Amino acid sequence: MSQLSVRKREGRLSSETVAALNSDLAARFGNRFTASEAIRKAHGHTLTWLENEPPDAVVFAESRDDVIDLVKLCARHDAPVVPFGVGTSLEGHVNAPHGGVSLDLTRMNAVTAVNADDLDCVVEPGVTRKQLNEHLRDSGLFFPIDPGADASLGGMAATRASGTNAVRYGTMKDVVLSLGVVVADGSFLRTGTRAKKSSAGYDLTHLFIGSEGTLGAIVEITLRLSGIPEAIAAGTCSFPDVRSACETTIETIQSGLPIARVELVDALSVRAFNTYSKLALPEQPMLMVEFHGTEASVAEQARRFGEIAAGHGAGPFASATRPEERSKLWQARHDTYWAQMTLRPGARPFATDACVPISRLADCVDETLADIERSGLVAPIVGHVGDGNFHVSPLIDMENPAEIDAAEGFTARLAHRAIAMGGTCTGEHGVGQKKRAYMDEEHGAIALDLMRRVKASFDPTNLFNPGKVFYA
Amino acid sequence: MSQLSVRKREGRLSSETVAALNSDLAARFGNRFTASEAIRKAHGHTLTWLENEPPDAVVFAESRDDVIDLVKLCARHDAPVVPFGVGTSLEGHVNAPHGGVSLDLTRMNAVTAVNADDLDCVVEPGVTRKQLNEHLRDSGLFFPIDPGADASLGGMAATRASGTNAVRYGTMKDVVLSLGVVVADGSFLRTGTRAKKSSAGYDLTHLFIGSEGTLGAIVEITLRLSGIPEAIAAGTCSFPDVRSACETTIETIQSGLPIARVELVDALSVRAFNTYSKLALPEQPMLMVEFHGTEASVAEQARRFGEIAAGHGAGPFASATRPEERSKLWQARHDTYWAQMTLRPGARPFATDACVPISRLADCVDETLADIERSGLVAPIVGHVGDGNFHVSPLIDMENPAEIDAAEGFTARLAHRAIAMGGTCTGEHGVGQKKRAYMDEEHGAIALDLMRRVKASFDPTNLFNPGKVFYA
Repeated sequence: MSQLSVRKREGRLSSETVAALNSDLAARFGNRFTASEAIRKAHGHTLTWLENEPPDAVVFAESRDDVIDLVKLCARHDAPVVPFGVGTSLEGHVNAPHGGVSLDLTRMNAVTAVNADDLDCVVEPGVTRKQLNEHLRDSGLFFPIDPGADASLGGMAATRASGTNAVRYGTMKDVVLSLGVVVADGSFLRTGTRAKKSSAGYDLTHLFIGSEGTLGAIVEITLRLSGIPEAIAAGTCSFPDVRSACETTIETIQSGLPIARVELVDALSVRAFNTYSKLALPEQPMLMVEFHGTEASVAEQARRFGEIAAGHGAGPFASATRPEERSKLWQARHDTYWAQMTLRPGARPFATDACVPISRLADCVDETLADIERSGLVAPIVGHVGDGNFHVSPLIDMENPAEIDAAEGFTARLAHRAIAMGGTCTGEHGVGQKKRAYMDEEHGAIALDLMRRVKASFDPTNLFNPGKVFYA
Repeated sequence: MSQLSVRKREGRLSSETVAALNSDLAARFGNRFTASEAIRKAHGHTLTWLENEPPDAVVFAESRDDVIDLVKLCARHDAPVVPFGVGTSLEGHVNAPHGGVSLDLTRMNAVTAVNADDLDCVVEPGVTRKQLNEHLRDSGLFFPIDPGADASLGGMAATRASGTNAVRYGTMKDVVLSLGVVVADGSFLRTGTRAKKSSAGYDLTHLFIGSEGTLGAIVEITLRLSGIPEAIAAGTCSFPDVRSACETTIETIQSGLPIARVELVDALSVRAFNTYSKLALPEQPMLMVEFHGTEASVAEQARRFGEIAAGHGAGPFASATRPEERSKLWQARHDTYWAQMTLRPGARPFATDACVPISRLADCVDETLADIERSGLVAPIVGHVGDGNFHVSPLIDMENPAEIDAAEGFTARLAHRAIAMGGTCTGEHGVGQKKRAYMDEEHGAIALDLMRRVKASFDPTNLFNPGKVFYA
């Protein structure tokens, strides 16, 4: 095919360009523009262990027109635009290796419309998932995608996020009906309608979902909502080893049981939960599960799950329906990142994730545990195992280059292992900066070339979030 | 943005080009190549009322390598490639307005793998949905997407097909995990892995789904399967008018009842069913419904649905669980196209579809009925109303230009009406040739420009299915 490649950016903007850019930004955005070092660093800094690469400026957008003007202004100065939600990404998505402007969207946080009759809503990108659920509280509806962190919905769409409920409710790819996007020439478009399905043309919605801000800035999201189930039950169940927990998960999924959450927590992470959340769970591998449905169906699901777990040597399974008990349990799960840090004070988590076909899950986790042992790492595992997706967080002394090397080697081996098993180097964290290294192996040269063609044809100057998803 | 537009093709290939092309095709494909007029016409001819535009040749591919060689050979002669499944599309997708080769994929009909543990399978594009379900018969699994016609799975992926089960099981966009595609330079790629989810890069899978053969030829499909439900119940329910049937549907969906099928059949279509399938249904608007689940849940769903329907003035609702009764009912629904033709012997159906947010469904169908009345058309309506999707088939005397004009006017007004209500000009039929006219109105110039950029960057010479999806 003809050459159509992504323009490569080298280094950062010159100080002259930054001065001219910032002068124009100040004129247009007043005190919603800042070049303060602390704020710039806070916009490069995320939960990642990756080096902080701050932007040259931060602009707090308050409207679609702000975004349009910012994009045009940056295009004029050939300065990168890096969309920023709340900064909870783990793969360096909001770093600015080539400088430019961090487009902070947190002030665009209006829930524009709730169409209860159609089970959908329209939000601005800075609305967080908790904020949306708070807004929906009395409607009988909820937004089910829950990556743990109280992420912005724009960021979740941009990284194709999922989380604990995905086994039943899907990922962002399943709940976004349409996106409003500002593209490289400052034009605004909507990628779809509010109809539940359509066969009218190419699927731009899914093209922007997971594009990590490299194709445009998401400024509006139409989301499908779900009815709050009549009954919810949750519980935990301990296992003699990780394999039996994985095998319980596999059998549960294969049996068609419509489980709403099934989370693996390894013994190390259970210990961390006990310390951080003041729980007294047995320090063995554990599954945390949740069932949604009618009273009768939830009871039936819990009973069937208990039988499957018992068949794999699990301890007794008891489920709780009281909201306070359930909240305490899931809060502990959501605090995993912070809890795991108690396992080695002062160390940083090298958080990574992988996802394999569920038939390979037990093998993949087992091999990963053996690798952790061989590598001498402290590396707790948790996972949304109903999807075949799990997380490993080696806890690393960042002053010790040998440890960093060991963690990088481990992370790379995990990516190769998942890909070799027919899976992916990231189930939900995204590619960002470091996982660009596995894109060729996972997708092959032809598919990766097509992705680059999309990028080159939508964003010919590589304005949007350069240095992410693939090497230019 | 810079210019990047789809190359426009004019007219058909010259007779010299066709002669040289066919000579090369004969040399490579032997008796799997034909230029027979009857076979060429059969490959342009589909169920559509649109004029037959036959290809210059037909090649019956038997392997991925056949497809690769064909694409390279066509590229050398600058001759279009028009992928062909079983020819059940309704919008002229397989017509060859610029000539070239119809790539018949029916012989690539192997079920390559069934991974029961992962609830997925891999098929060649010529496998039909019924063939797949036959193959899966003893596995406890089934493939739920059911557009009525026994379409090929390649064609269904290419048109983002759905059908009667979509309200519960989704559309092709929800069940395709990965595609194997041959693109314009003859390269083969896979768009994804068998992992249930991934955040690794742009979503090429969804980009090819619904691209109607304009971006490449689908030669392999990885599909998610579902467990056969323990119990199934189906039934019909008559209503005083179409609005009350629509309102029953809306209330059912909004209540969160996990109905598996909910089909509207208007009084005219009921009459056609009675004639064609020898049934004795009351000739009133009707809903045909189906429930999947455990014995208890199916009974509960049927009871709740009956209550909702009664609240909208419906006649008694009885559900049948015997497979023979259910089959007879759904066979009648699937024969709609043929049954409707009995309403006006000799006339052709101008089949069209539209889809709106479900809150607007009753309004849209009501306005459409009034339009039918005003236009003096015989135009039965059926629909997958749980998705807000419905079909209208004006029965037209093709010898009468005034009738054709009336049908075209009606079809255009329906598209405009659906778009104005926040919906789409096609929920599942696809764009093909005639619905290109509404793409600008539905998507806007910016989104349509991005679609054209994708096409231009993947297929710069407009080799694949030119003249479909959008005007060049």
